[in-house]
Amino acid sequence: MKLWLTLTAAALSFSTAANNLTFNDTLAYQLTESLTVEVGQRLAGSEADARAVAWAERTFKQLGFDKVWTEPFTMQYWERGQASLTVSEPFRQNLVVTALGGSVATPFDGISAQVAMFDSLEQLKAADQTLVKDKIVFINKSMEKDKLGSFYGSVVGARAQGAVEAAKLGAKAIIIRSVGTSINRFAHTGIMRYSDDVARIPAAAVSVPDAMQLARMLERQPELTLQLQMQNKLPGEVTSHNVIAEITGSKYPDEIVLIGAHLDSWDEGTGALDDGAGVGLVIATAALLKQQGRPQRTIRVVLFGNEEGGLVGARAYAAKHANNLNKHVFASESDFGAGRIWRLDTGFGEKSLAFAKALQQKLASYGVEAGNNTASGGPDVSVLKAQGVPVVSLQQDGTDYFDYHHTPNDTLDKIDPAALQQNLQVWLHTVSAVANSRYDLRK
Amino acid sequence: MKLWLTLTAAALSFSTAANNLTFNDTLAYQLTESLTVEVGQRLAGSEADARAVAWAERTFKQLGFDKVWTEPFTMQYWERGQASLTVSEPFRQNLVVTALGGSVATPFDGISAQVAMFDSLEQLKAADQTLVKDKIVFINKSMEKDKLGSFYGSVVGARAQGAVEAAKLGAKAIIIRSVGTSINRFAHTGIMRYSDDVARIPAAAVSVPDAMQLARMLERQPELTLQLQMQNKLPGEVTSHNVIAEITGSKYPDEIVLIGAHLDSWDEGTGALDDGAGVGLVIATAALLKQQGRPQRTIRVVLFGNEEGGLVGARAYAAKHANNLNKHVFASESDFGAGRIWRLDTGFGEKSLAFAKALQQKLASYGVEAGNNTASGGPDVSVLKAQGVPVVSLQQDGTDYFDYHHTPNDTLDKIDPAALQQNLQVWLHTVSAVANSRYDLRK
Repeated sequence: MKLWLTLTAAALSFSTAANNLTFNDTLAYQLTESLTVEVGQRLAGSEADARAVAWAERTFKQLGFDKVWTEPFTMQYWERGQASLTVSEPFRQNLVVTALGGSVATPFDGISAQVAMFDSLEQLKAADQTLVKDKIVFINKSMEKDKLGSFYGSVVGARAQGAVEAAKLGAKAIIIRSVGTSINRFAHTGIMRYSDDVARIPAAAVSVPDAMQLARMLERQPELTLQLQMQNKLPGEVTSHNVIAEITGSKYPDEIVLIGAHLDSWDEGTGALDDGAGVGLVIATAALLKQQGRPQRTIRVVLFGNEEGGLVGARAYAAKHANNLNKHVFASESDFGAGRIWRLDTGFGEKSLAFAKALQQKLASYGVEAGNNTASGGPDVSVLKAQGVPVVSLQQDGTDYFDYHHTPNDTLDKIDPAALQQNLQVWLHTVSAVANSRYDLRK
Repeated sequence: MKLWLTLTAAALSFSTAANNLTFNDTLAYQLTESLTVEVGQRLAGSEADARAVAWAERTFKQLGFDKVWTEPFTMQYWERGQASLTVSEPFRQNLVVTALGGSVATPFDGISAQVAMFDSLEQLKAADQTLVKDKIVFINKSMEKDKLGSFYGSVVGARAQGAVEAAKLGAKAIIIRSVGTSINRFAHTGIMRYSDDVARIPAAAVSVPDAMQLARMLERQPELTLQLQMQNKLPGEVTSHNVIAEITGSKYPDEIVLIGAHLDSWDEGTGALDDGAGVGLVIATAALLKQQGRPQRTIRVVLFGNEEGGLVGARAYAAKHANNLNKHVFASESDFGAGRIWRLDTGFGEKSLAFAKALQQKLASYGVEAGNNTASGGPDVSVLKAQGVPVVSLQQDGTDYFDYHHTPNDTLDKIDPAALQQNLQVWLHTVSAVANSRYDLRK
């Protein structure tokens, strides 16, 4: 199959005035570069988040979108502070640590305690309180790799719920082995949760090499003392925004084909894989489709805010548009890095599976296989799926995604421009097919 | 060829009381693990360095060395402080930075200045003063990979001499792209130099991804301002130690076969590749050779102090033993990570090349090729070579060495235990051959 843009690349190749974006098959990469270089990290609710929102509005306008607007939502702001984790004598040394998102600070002088090590969250839950009380819990569960990232679910519980479970047993703090698949010495952050009826204890992650190191130390000296010190801030409620833009449909303008990504990122990298690439892809898809001739249905690009804090922008979007979700004929999100798309999963009605099959056949030359009909559509879009919106997951090869996910190492250089071009071609075909079809994908 | 230890492994397998070291072909790895876990980083002159010296003395004694002693030397102590590098508006973000070893601090509030970017030290040297004065110089030279690390020499000049050259032209500070070959977001430290007649300006390295990021920013906005802030300390003169141990020769005890490594490391990793692996290898080699039956010549293990600060321990050793260097019949150092040994280079007299050839043939089954006769013997041992001591370089595959070199990511998990076992076999054969021969390798 010809590349989507081959036919008209010459006609489309021009630059916008302000940031030299060029309408060609590198547009997704150009946008990802622009966002990660000119804004960098964009922690939800931060000053940088506001700059990212301004970047998005400006960029949509420059690219000729028909409508551009923002939708505010309120959120609890959390800010990382300095963190350190020190092993006591006789093996005195510092470990690489980072606060989990949402964690309270330690007292200024830190928390010193012996360590209670567990292989998993499940083992912690089953532990006797006497083993845990007044200790720092350490959950040392490793994560394996695969294309789908399917091991994430069985490991991330320690991050999300570990603090509550440890606090129930009287622990002073919790540290986890990073939810990640690399032996590079980066700690992986990510959101954690408290429960209103359980004490809020500090929660942090150590890098994989440091988790291995700590386990080796504890084997030699189980009485080891750790000192954890973190200065996170929780300033309270702030406002952030979803940024939304449309290419109005030529024939069915009230039928919304929603494509999304999340604009926010964790604060230590530049959010290139998570989710700058997704932002670049969905903006480029809509912009290039308009240039190809306006599609029949409306394409709405939604850049969700505060995905990392727990789909906060997505929930705000679903609430605000609750009365209009029946006009959302399709939704899909790109939020799994920048690896090649290798499978088409759908969440359609049974009668639309013929459409899915035809689409997959069109995508086969890009290496896209037929998948299942149980797609979530992506983290933010899953909120819309729960309200009945038909979805697609264009599954990316995420083998290396958790090497970088939520670390300082999530930077532009980790993106293979050729893989991102393949993504863009698949998105162009998919969104064009949906936006120019009459299928009711709910059926 | 049989593995060296196969014949007697059963007889030799026993544990020492204190740290469970076992005399088998994993002994080098066991020692590297013991040093990096129980001591961790050991910056020359620091409290951790002193613990490393104590670890070495204790370990030599446990392993049954005949003599164990330390030799003090004085050195200038330098200690890393907190460091940050921030890009100003409109691209406000933090870059990953680390101080170069020996660098002065910035004023407490940091240094803010525009940037003068250069491709290389040579380009900086040729620059007009007006381009550099009152700026922060940024040298953005990349490094390629190969087995020998042969590109290091052409890049490291920016690190060592950049501050002097930048200061001559009136720069306020210098930052360099890390001397490293990985796109992981670690800044590589390493020693830098000042000149007495030139102003001492702060010097730092940014990670490779951050150097690429800064270059992209400067392309968009050449007037960008950077703020560099570092709190290094230079407390002055302290004492550190070389640690030395011997297996006394059975027949020619006054003929010294010196094998060495450096005990100190940079402070951000645990110095596993640089040079924990070398320490493990040379201790294990001597200890296992004694178990095999005492060699005819004396094997002297020298763990040099403060290699990283500029071969300070090596120079002290050469000075102290100046009158006895003629009795040093051989010297070799392991200080290039833990990759497989693939080539035998020598620095022998012409008449000893037959010995070198026979040795290489013995090592061929381990994949060791014949090399040249211009070996340095290793960084510390090169000081002895300059005084006429015959040397060997057992060349390790250093393809990935500069991915980790001088970063927080230099940790035990980066060592392949099988590769370290291959190293140990080659060292055992080599040192045994020399210690049981009558060749005068000077001839």
